[in-house]
Amino acid sequence: MNSPSVNQHRYSHSNEPSWSRSEKAIARKTFDAALDRELQEVIREAKQKAGQIKEPADLWDLEHFLTQRRKDIDRKYDYRYSQLDLVFGRLLREKWIDEEDLRGLGEDKLRAIHSFAKFSAGTDPA
Amino acid sequence: MNSPSVNQHRYSHSNEPSWSRSEKAIARKTFDAALDRELQEVIREAKQKAGQIKEPADLWDLEHFLTQRRKDIDRKYDYRYSQLDLVFGRLLREKWIDEEDLRGLGEDKLRAIHSFAKFSAGTDPA
Repeated sequence: MNSPSVNQHRYSHSNEPSWSRSEKAIARKTFDAALDRELQEVIREAKQKAGQIKEPADLWDLEHFLTQRRKDIDRKYDYRYSQLDLVFGRLLREKWIDEEDLRGLGEDKLRAIHSFAKFSAGTDPA
Repeated sequence: MNSPSVNQHRYSHSNEPSWSRSEKAIARKTFDAALDRELQEVIREAKQKAGQIKEPADLWDLEHFLTQRRKDIDRKYDYRYSQLDLVFGRLLREKWIDEEDLRGLGEDKLRAIHSFAKFSAGTDPA
């Protein structure tokens, strides 16, 4: 409730591109589809790992895999308009979405997303 | 290093039955066999649960199942001679071991184990 948080709020509004109604619809659809693809992939991998369990250590490897994937996905899929350029940039780089999924977003968004797609290549775990 | 811990140490020695060499061999074999049976059962259940995964929530149910089983097994399998009567009592009650596995242990141990088998029935999660 003190001034820094008020300033932060103003600052963030003045620097973020606003999302039109049609852009929001595209963003929601793209976001949900990517999340679904990634979760389906985790399901596929978990079933495969479980099928290969031979000894107790393999059980705890599977547990660790699931915990890591859950945390990673929780962190990655942040549906705030202030974060979406970054999120889509990463998803583009990791190939969970492609250019077609982004069609209809404004030039400003696409520029930011492509910039984050390149940037995040050096910061995320591969 | 202060007196309470020294007293505890003495107290525990004066009240615990000592384990003969042959009893220790039986205890080790019985303990390891029970742990192996229980882990094989976790492997069986994990494979079954993984096979039935249909949606993301099922993934995190499997993760939770594995975490709980790991913690439970870590807590339960405490191979200290001061704890073995209690451990075998619980394993007997849960049918991971039977009377035959305990054959060769002294009467004092068997009495304590049977007493813990009954006692733990009211204290553990079923």
